[in-house]
Amino acid sequence: MDYSTMSQEALQNNFNGAKKRHNLLVKEKLNLDLSRGKPSPEQLDLSMPLLNICNSTFSSPKGTDYRNYGYLDGVPELREVLAEILSVNKENVMIGGSNSLNLMYDVLSRAYCFGVCGQTPWCKLSEIKFICPVPGYDRHFTLLEQFGIQMISVPLNDNGPDMDLVEELVASDQNIKGMFCVPRFSNPTGIVYSDEVVTRLMNMKTLATDFRIFWDNAYFAHDLYPDAPKLKNVFCEENQNIDRFYMFVSTSKITFASGGISALVCSDKNFASMHKMLSAQTINYDKINQYAHAQFLQSPENLRLHMAKHAEILRPKFEIIISALREAFEGSTVVRWTEPKGGYFITITTLPKVAHRVIELCKKAGLKLTEAGCAHPLHRDDMDSTIRVAPSFAPMEELDLCAKVLVTSLEYATLEELCKK
Amino acid sequence: MDYSTMSQEALQNNFNGAKKRHNLLVKEKLNLDLSRGKPSPEQLDLSMPLLNICNSTFSSPKGTDYRNYGYLDGVPELREVLAEILSVNKENVMIGGSNSLNLMYDVLSRAYCFGVCGQTPWCKLSEIKFICPVPGYDRHFTLLEQFGIQMISVPLNDNGPDMDLVEELVASDQNIKGMFCVPRFSNPTGIVYSDEVVTRLMNMKTLATDFRIFWDNAYFAHDLYPDAPKLKNVFCEENQNIDRFYMFVSTSKITFASGGISALVCSDKNFASMHKMLSAQTINYDKINQYAHAQFLQSPENLRLHMAKHAEILRPKFEIIISALREAFEGSTVVRWTEPKGGYFITITTLPKVAHRVIELCKKAGLKLTEAGCAHPLHRDDMDSTIRVAPSFAPMEELDLCAKVLVTSLEYATLEELCKK
Repeated sequence: MDYSTMSQEALQNNFNGAKKRHNLLVKEKLNLDLSRGKPSPEQLDLSMPLLNICNSTFSSPKGTDYRNYGYLDGVPELREVLAEILSVNKENVMIGGSNSLNLMYDVLSRAYCFGVCGQTPWCKLSEIKFICPVPGYDRHFTLLEQFGIQMISVPLNDNGPDMDLVEELVASDQNIKGMFCVPRFSNPTGIVYSDEVVTRLMNMKTLATDFRIFWDNAYFAHDLYPDAPKLKNVFCEENQNIDRFYMFVSTSKITFASGGISALVCSDKNFASMHKMLSAQTINYDKINQYAHAQFLQSPENLRLHMAKHAEILRPKFEIIISALREAFEGSTVVRWTEPKGGYFITITTLPKVAHRVIELCKKAGLKLTEAGCAHPLHRDDMDSTIRVAPSFAPMEELDLCAKVLVTSLEYATLEELCKK
Repeated sequence: MDYSTMSQEALQNNFNGAKKRHNLLVKEKLNLDLSRGKPSPEQLDLSMPLLNICNSTFSSPKGTDYRNYGYLDGVPELREVLAEILSVNKENVMIGGSNSLNLMYDVLSRAYCFGVCGQTPWCKLSEIKFICPVPGYDRHFTLLEQFGIQMISVPLNDNGPDMDLVEELVASDQNIKGMFCVPRFSNPTGIVYSDEVVTRLMNMKTLATDFRIFWDNAYFAHDLYPDAPKLKNVFCEENQNIDRFYMFVSTSKITFASGGISALVCSDKNFASMHKMLSAQTINYDKINQYAHAQFLQSPENLRLHMAKHAEILRPKFEIIISALREAFEGSTVVRWTEPKGGYFITITTLPKVAHRVIELCKKAGLKLTEAGCAHPLHRDDMDSTIRVAPSFAPMEELDLCAKVLVTSLEYATLEELCKK
């Protein structure tokens, strides 16, 4: 529907229609949820054979008993499998606990307490700033907020963050110490950083010598379509600033959301510096789970087949939402959305001042969405135009209804705003 | 053997004999190890049924899917079982990852970065000090060293730390912010804090209002004998300073050294303060493993039976070492040792300047011991008289030989020192 050419009267008529349809939905007392980027039970079932592996012996081919202490950096078998999957050296892969957020927290916390590779601990500085591509992942922002780190929002475009702005900022302010990125199937827009953007991130001059990019590659294997864009590998010979990147991955959305494994990939220099501190922090992460994961994941090809099964479950859910949006708003300039080739989220961009109203109307009609502002630092979406939609957890049979409530609420709120003018 | 009444000539003769016997042992080219407080493979086998549990469904009785995100503080079933075992409220139990050292690091790190319950972050202070009962656990000292915290050694007596000294120190210095304790079967002496000592720790006046005791109850269930002394519960109504204590436990030496679960117990106030920060740090720990542990541990009585099986394996190993020490040095004042009723370690106290020599002689004869100074802050045992012996990991059939090398080296080094006089 193209609202731009409508008369005020037509807009009012359409608004009345949308309001009526919304009222009918409210009466149905639905209980729907598109708020959480959680895998569905069917997806979790795909990994149940992993738990059977837990019955086997836990001795490495070399006879090491993985049930006992040791191997701070993780079992060699899993480091090797992940290295192959991620095209990095296994010496640069460290395996952590069940979620990568905790690894990010630890890296940030070490920089704060002890400094980056021997430089001044950030806690001794009067001001620390990070660049945050926006919209972004709320838990990154919460992490930065926890450490009192000032967040500088930079627009996230279809090919990655606005690099002109990023380059200007990092070149001129030595208090800018880092940047959080979800470079593939970004949370929440689903875009993939282009090779050009990745190259500029590798090459840009930073005033701070301890500037670090938190490269949260959460969706590295989470393709929904075979033609999903690839991400340029930052751990390549071409990268002259390899110390700049800490890459994080996890199997939370590959095996189990609770009970997967996480991994950190970083340069030799960063690894050596971290390893010393890590040995004061912990004895080892769960190697039984690590060894089981090594046997379950096996190889890049095996992982690809496994993720294709996830995609079979997820893809139709994305397509139902996107079809409904297309049907209602194709060609519209007042409601836009992303059509990701992978990941867990769709982002809808509304007219200014409308997003919170859509979320409110959905809630009234029994559909829970993530709260307004969630994709912005300090929950402040000044434009009030970003809505994150997570189709994964809702059962397949509820998706049509979810889409109906979502679209109706979008029409209602958008027309309400247009009629004000 | 009582060396105190011997003539210089008799000492010299005995020394020559010990040296000769040591030389013969050296020629055997042995490969023995009493250095590591690791459970033996037989002990780890006791918990293999835990891994079978991993085949069951992971839904709570309420239908919650523990394979998915959520339950930051741990699965309710495990919090409940641990609460019952530890005689605390389940609301005060938080379940962590596979080792409690990491929980201690996190508590310390939070105090350092963000302050204790709203007070000044320790990183903003020019000086932080901790009290360390000595001999103590090397990893506690490494943790404090990592944060640049000054360690004040206080003697650990048979009933706990020297409380006169502790009380005096904490009452007079507001930079003393905490204390590490292993209150039951202390690492490495194996002593248990008496009720009087625990009561004094609860009641003492501290100048610092953010003073905290890291109560590392690592061996809470690790009795070797049925008459092992109990530890007074600090989470009792009588304790007027309940916020003072963070208690840490783990199943590393109950189920799997790699792949167990850890837990933190603290007061309502500490818990609320921690919970907020924890939610920025992580999403959840491994709930699949937690739920399996809840089903495996079951109840205090079941845990007691399980730990009795551990004791059956461990006790004879302790007894071989202790018998050999008794046979060689009963009634001696120059070699003393502890005879713990539980835990993982025996401490031997030699004449001053002799410990490193014993460890060196053992090494020459093929027996690895923990390095000298390990039980002291910064590895500085100024008296050079403390040796930590860990009998758990060596196979039972090697224990006699281990004891022989140990005793011979003790005789050699002690007599060498006495002959110098």
